[in-house]
Amino acid sequence: MAKSKKFVYAFEEGNRSMKEILGGKGANLAEMKNLGINVPPGFTITTEVCDQYYKDKKTLNTEVKRQIEIKLKDLQKKMGKVLGDANDPLLVSVRSGAAASMPGMMDTILNLGLNDKSVLGLAKKTNNPRFAWDSYRRLIQMFGSVVMEVEHADFEHILEKVKASKGAKFDTDLTAEDLQEIVARYKAQIKKVKGVDFPQDPIKQMYLSINAVFGSWNNYRAIRYREINNIKGLIGTAVNIQAMVFGNLGDTSGTGVCFTRNPSTGEAKFYGEYLMNAQGEDVVAGIRTPLAVSTLQKQNPAIYKELVTICNKVEKHYRDMQDMEFTIQDNKLYILQARNGKRTATSAVRVAVELVKEKILTKEEALLRIDPNQLNQLLHKQFDSVALSKAEVIATGLPASPGAAVGEIVFTAKDAFEKTQKGLDVILVRVETSPEDIDGMHSAKGILTARGGMTSHAAVVARGMGTCCVAGCSEIEINEKAKTLTVKSAGKGVALKEGDYISLDGSTGKVYAGKIGTRDPELSGDFGKLMAWADSIRKIGVRTNADTPTDASVARKFGAEGIGLCRTEHMFFDVNRIKAVREMILAGDLESRKKALAKLLPYQKEDFVELFRTMDGFPVTVRLLDPPLHEFLPKEKKDIEELSREMKVDVKTLMAKIDDLHEFNPMLGHRGCRLAITFPEIYDMQVEAIIEAAIEVSRGPKKLKKIQPEIMIPLVATTKEFSIIKDRIVEIVERKMKEAKVKIAYKVGTMIEVPRAALVADKIVEAGAEFFSFGTNDLTQMGIGLSRDDAGKFLKEYVAQGIFDQDPFEVLDQEGVGELIRIAIKKGRGVKKDLKVGICGEHGGEPKTVEFCHREGFTYVSCSPFRVPIARLAAAQAAIKDKTKK
Amino acid sequence: MAKSKKFVYAFEEGNRSMKEILGGKGANLAEMKNLGINVPPGFTITTEVCDQYYKDKKTLNTEVKRQIEIKLKDLQKKMGKVLGDANDPLLVSVRSGAAASMPGMMDTILNLGLNDKSVLGLAKKTNNPRFAWDSYRRLIQMFGSVVMEVEHADFEHILEKVKASKGAKFDTDLTAEDLQEIVARYKAQIKKVKGVDFPQDPIKQMYLSINAVFGSWNNYRAIRYREINNIKGLIGTAVNIQAMVFGNLGDTSGTGVCFTRNPSTGEAKFYGEYLMNAQGEDVVAGIRTPLAVSTLQKQNPAIYKELVTICNKVEKHYRDMQDMEFTIQDNKLYILQARNGKRTATSAVRVAVELVKEKILTKEEALLRIDPNQLNQLLHKQFDSVALSKAEVIATGLPASPGAAVGEIVFTAKDAFEKTQKGLDVILVRVETSPEDIDGMHSAKGILTARGGMTSHAAVVARGMGTCCVAGCSEIEINEKAKTLTVKSAGKGVALKEGDYISLDGSTGKVYAGKIGTRDPELSGDFGKLMAWADSIRKIGVRTNADTPTDASVARKFGAEGIGLCRTEHMFFDVNRIKAVREMILAGDLESRKKALAKLLPYQKEDFVELFRTMDGFPVTVRLLDPPLHEFLPKEKKDIEELSREMKVDVKTLMAKIDDLHEFNPMLGHRGCRLAITFPEIYDMQVEAIIEAAIEVSRGPKKLKKIQPEIMIPLVATTKEFSIIKDRIVEIVERKMKEAKVKIAYKVGTMIEVPRAALVADKIVEAGAEFFSFGTNDLTQMGIGLSRDDAGKFLKEYVAQGIFDQDPFEVLDQEGVGELIRIAIKKGRGVKKDLKVGICGEHGGEPKTVEFCHREGFTYVSCSPFRVPIARLAAAQAAIKDKTKK
Repeated sequence: MAKSKKFVYAFEEGNRSMKEILGGKGANLAEMKNLGINVPPGFTITTEVCDQYYKDKKTLNTEVKRQIEIKLKDLQKKMGKVLGDANDPLLVSVRSGAAASMPGMMDTILNLGLNDKSVLGLAKKTNNPRFAWDSYRRLIQMFGSVVMEVEHADFEHILEKVKASKGAKFDTDLTAEDLQEIVARYKAQIKKVKGVDFPQDPIKQMYLSINAVFGSWNNYRAIRYREINNIKGLIGTAVNIQAMVFGNLGDTSGTGVCFTRNPSTGEAKFYGEYLMNAQGEDVVAGIRTPLAVSTLQKQNPAIYKELVTICNKVEKHYRDMQDMEFTIQDNKLYILQARNGKRTATSAVRVAVELVKEKILTKEEALLRIDPNQLNQLLHKQFDSVALSKAEVIATGLPASPGAAVGEIVFTAKDAFEKTQKGLDVILVRVETSPEDIDGMHSAKGILTARGGMTSHAAVVARGMGTCCVAGCSEIEINEKAKTLTVKSAGKGVALKEGDYISLDGSTGKVYAGKIGTRDPELSGDFGKLMAWADSIRKIGVRTNADTPTDASVARKFGAEGIGLCRTEHMFFDVNRIKAVREMILAGDLESRKKALAKLLPYQKEDFVELFRTMDGFPVTVRLLDPPLHEFLPKEKKDIEELSREMKVDVKTLMAKIDDLHEFNPMLGHRGCRLAITFPEIYDMQVEAIIEAAIEVSRGPKKLKKIQPEIMIPLVATTKEFSIIKDRIVEIVERKMKEAKVKIAYKVGTMIEVPRAALVADKIVEAGAEFFSFGTNDLTQMGIGLSRDDAGKFLKEYVAQGIFDQDPFEVLDQEGVGELIRIAIKKGRGVKKDLKVGICGEHGGEPKTVEFCHREGFTYVSCSPFRVPIARLAAAQAAIKDKTKK
Repeated sequence: MAKSKKFVYAFEEGNRSMKEILGGKGANLAEMKNLGINVPPGFTITTEVCDQYYKDKKTLNTEVKRQIEIKLKDLQKKMGKVLGDANDPLLVSVRSGAAASMPGMMDTILNLGLNDKSVLGLAKKTNNPRFAWDSYRRLIQMFGSVVMEVEHADFEHILEKVKASKGAKFDTDLTAEDLQEIVARYKAQIKKVKGVDFPQDPIKQMYLSINAVFGSWNNYRAIRYREINNIKGLIGTAVNIQAMVFGNLGDTSGTGVCFTRNPSTGEAKFYGEYLMNAQGEDVVAGIRTPLAVSTLQKQNPAIYKELVTICNKVEKHYRDMQDMEFTIQDNKLYILQARNGKRTATSAVRVAVELVKEKILTKEEALLRIDPNQLNQLLHKQFDSVALSKAEVIATGLPASPGAAVGEIVFTAKDAFEKTQKGLDVILVRVETSPEDIDGMHSAKGILTARGGMTSHAAVVARGMGTCCVAGCSEIEINEKAKTLTVKSAGKGVALKEGDYISLDGSTGKVYAGKIGTRDPELSGDFGKLMAWADSIRKIGVRTNADTPTDASVARKFGAEGIGLCRTEHMFFDVNRIKAVREMILAGDLESRKKALAKLLPYQKEDFVELFRTMDGFPVTVRLLDPPLHEFLPKEKKDIEELSREMKVDVKTLMAKIDDLHEFNPMLGHRGCRLAITFPEIYDMQVEAIIEAAIEVSRGPKKLKKIQPEIMIPLVATTKEFSIIKDRIVEIVERKMKEAKVKIAYKVGTMIEVPRAALVADKIVEAGAEFFSFGTNDLTQMGIGLSRDDAGKFLKEYVAQGIFDQDPFEVLDQEGVGELIRIAIKKGRGVKKDLKVGICGEHGGEPKTVEFCHREGFTYVSCSPFRVPIARLAAAQAAIKDKTKK
């Protein structure tokens, strides 16, 4: 460490651009200081010192100490007081502050500088012995637990005992003498437990506190917080040492928190709470009810005016809504903290739009202010927040599909369907869902599974339908036979049965016992405005993954410009059709297979007619049948027996067929276009249905002139697969069009979801592929060799160890899987410059992935209906960032 | 079709380089003609005509006909006879002949030109009415069945009837009059069945025959033959029209087949058989016993001398052993066919080596002459060919691991093990094998499975052990409970039970009932010589995949220069160890897991000590644990109960654990280095065992100075996985070496078997990978998205439709999977120029893949012990071809 390097900055030496080394709090305090705002003076020890502290085996080197002591002297000079002085002591706070906000995760020490002597000086100086002893009591308690690691409960215990003996109900009922007694007992406890005294030397107090703050950077809860919030790449926390100011010096003192705009609604109205004669903790602790900040206007108009002026100044300066902490000490206003205020999605949208109206932000800046993922909150049902705060969380799973759902527990898809028919609201609870459950899933208000990740069947289907889903909730144990649900977690013995009510929060993954009130989403005018800006700026299209007219119509409302993926297999699971599907699978020869397929044709055609109508001329990409055939057959013995009766095929034959279709790795099995190579008649039927539907719609009542069917072949790995199937498709489509004397502009393209396809993409285009759609779910599975159904067991560990930055099924692995995509686009566009390129995996609605797609020149992204607005915003943000770079 | 193009070539107009258009037979006849050898004159209609024939909806165009008729006139002029002339008719044969040999697959017509009139002329001219009528009878029979499509059985039936009525035992007992009667009946049958007469016009006969030959190019058996023998890219067959010569004109005539060297042993001695007064068919039909060609020396020394002279001339000309057909007509010698003779592997090796000795071939040419795959025959036990020809084939599966095996049927691995302990030879018959069966597989003489492909567990393990295996024999039905095996194929009702004898031919996939005698392989001196030449020429190393000292020692004998893959998991399945492995898996915490692993350590160490000793200083690449843990737990209820008693863990807990470990796609699951990320202690133990073993060997009795352990991490997908695990390995190895005061040159490298790893190969090398070994099994599975356990169901269809040229699990998919390999090598060597690169998938011993590896600059290939010589030869051939190109 070079001697000349600066490790400690007085607030006035920094500014907001120095967040990396001063931390968020330090940089903001510095910025305000420089704006001329009355911030109690102090200095910041940089994050680099934290890093070095760990490298030096948790010690501070002499150069750092030298610089700290210089700054301390400066501070003492400014304040005209000396730390721990016996007559008029300077008191300071020691606070952590990293570059990313980690509220409450690290340690804080207040009132540092008090000791047995200076407490008396403070009492005398302030003429307020109770205040002095209470401050000392608080210091010993914080320092004792945080720095000296005495159990916090030990102190609480003493406090309670003394309160009881004095008949005091609140802390505030304690007198100076009572507090003095507590101080004595606290010190004795420390001595007893740790064998050493509470340090009387203020400098020693300070260094021990600094070390404790650095140490807290790697305490368990701080590490977990960074993990959970995916905070990476920080070198440590800074330490802020600041002169204390007191809001509890009497009626001319006070403390409060305020927002420049309403953080819930976004309304441009000063908003906040305060308490006179109080310290910050008191506001939070709820000992007294705080007053609305508007009251201050009457109580102390001068201070109020000053506060409002400062707030406006800071908001203008930061060009965003501010969350500020202030203290009034003897009628003097101090600002202790200012930061961009956290807000609800509703508020975020309104604030952004209004800041544009106020000409504070450009549209582009406003768009960049919104976290696309936050929009989720706006699009789904939400729980009433008051009811929610009182509800009992019984378990937590993955927030698989957002929304709020309340209903009776059912354990089978059949029960879900039947109870819904009777008008009941149900929550379908399953170990995991399978395609057979589709009707039940459609009926249920919410879905809860014990197994499976963010891209499990339940999660994918639920997101597609916009149904609330909590997946992979491993704490619950389901007994499908007994129809009970128990929560495994030690201690909590929750046991629920069929018919009991539960509530699911799909945005947090929380499961609650009982009913919680919900409210509908409101898509305000501001939201529409923001989306319109986004659309005018973004370069890539946004389509939706939709299998049904309902999905498609929701997606259209959310602004989808076409269907990027219509999975035809979901149509096969419908109660009316599954029988014909099974007949087809069980058919012994081509003739009977064709017969069964002929029964399906009218259904499929009807589906497509509706879809084309709903999409009103926008392109509709239909993926031909993808899953392995065994997915359409039952697995349970009971269901097999039922099927045997229904189909008049004996159980043994049926079992043999199911056994024959069994696969060790169905993900890599006989599915996708492989089915069409062995059973071409299946795709033939689907293609007929598509083109007949298109012809019908073109002639139908609306006489829709522009219909853009895009026929997509799944799981292509080789050029020849593509060309064999494409030839067949073209033959059917051309024949049908000729017969009907209608021309429809159709396209035939391919999924790129097998790594090999990406590697021979040029040849696939040469063979006639008119578009690519990257199936990033499978491309991730095969490219990384990860089964999404199984990886849940170790992926958390992988993210924790930094092997993946994020779950690659949620956020595209741009380095690895992304490389396959880059190769494919380069090769594909090398042959056909204007090749249409899209993405239709689960990643299509994930903001970072959308940015990647923008960068790599995609034509469009496609995502589930409820992610369409997110994708639109993310696409706009990508375009803005791109322009800024250039 | 341009008029000027030449479609018909007289023999003297062609040469052997024109095989593509003249076919093999036509080109060879032309070549011989030009050598001045007495070949009956004739002409060839090119393969291009065949192609055009199909394009023109099975018609010959006028230009082709014009050219045919010109050549026919020339032929008539040369022979001084006219086709079908009533007094002295020219007779011709019409034969197929494609560029690749397809013996017996297409049609042939002999004696063409006979009709009701010319038969009388021929009788008169040859003064041999019986001969004339027999020739006519044969023409009508061939023409009738081949061209006119009358059932062949119809003719046989008439022939048998007349023979019976005349009391004739053999055809030769029939008189001219009898044959005349047969001719009449044949013609009547044709008229009756087809409603038309047998054509009397010889030109019409000729054209119909030409069309029939072209038509036979696409008959079912020809298509199947090309499929099976993987003959691709041919445009059609040529047609050869050649003047007939007759070996059955009396005692001065005869016919025979000869080889310039012995096709079984390779001995350089003229070899063959002939019959006087006979036609070619008679030699084949076995009506009379043919004489050894040496007899001809006494019978007709002049002809014999002429034949030997011609044969030697042709052999020298073609520089290879020849298989020739000859006919003596009235003391005049004609050569009808000459081609490189088919031979056994033993013969191939001897011939090649001796041709070098005789200075006819260079060593390089000799090496190119041997089909590497043929060497398989030399390395394994073989059936006695006489016994084999009489044995009953009951079913045919995939030739998964070559060799011949005879034994009693057993249905469980346990039975296999126990019966073997009693000294019995057993064949293990399973629906499919699993790693639990390893002991039984080791004990059995052969393995037969009903399911699974060439790379199924049974196949891979059996090849590794050099045990004969027939896999995926879907015709058999196994009832493991009843311990019976039945053959499904319609008609054949074979039912076998435990204890019955069967014989397996692992080189053909055939399964025989009963015992067939076997003989041991003999590795002759010629074989050694050839291998030495190969070694001196090849550029890339050849290592072996070996898990046990036995495997390693076999491989050393076959010339392996190290171990490229030692799969440590096979060591875990040993009866003595599996218990500790299961304890480890069931352990609830790190401590008990470590305890169980400590039990395994001495076993693993012992394994490595033996391996290092066996490999005697050659590098040994040890792959750390790869399979998912559930593979080590039982699946059947019975076995789970047994384990429950053994481990004192209740069944429910055990079931829950097994259930918990269950994976939907185990191929993409929690295995390989992923295990080491979650349970690092497993690899720690293995690394300790490796380095302790190396240290022990370096100090042991032999004091082996050079030990080259190469520690290989499986299933790496990301840089970070590699670096986390490598750091741990290095830490352990360095610590152990320091403790022991020993320095061993070890390396740490990675499998490249996940597509993503190939794409970030540069970064993995930057992270310290010292070698790459391509796991092409998994790279194929993930790259193409094909599960090798499941793909069997549709891969045949894929190969048949030309989607894959060959099964990509047998022959590397050079275009797709190969591209991943090229990318990885380019990126890897971009960082580290001398990066060691190997292959250890099943493809490592496949000649085309070896050639690919040579071309792409691999350091070595690694394959199962019994494929080592194949790989050595293939590597030499690749080097020679490469040099030739340059």
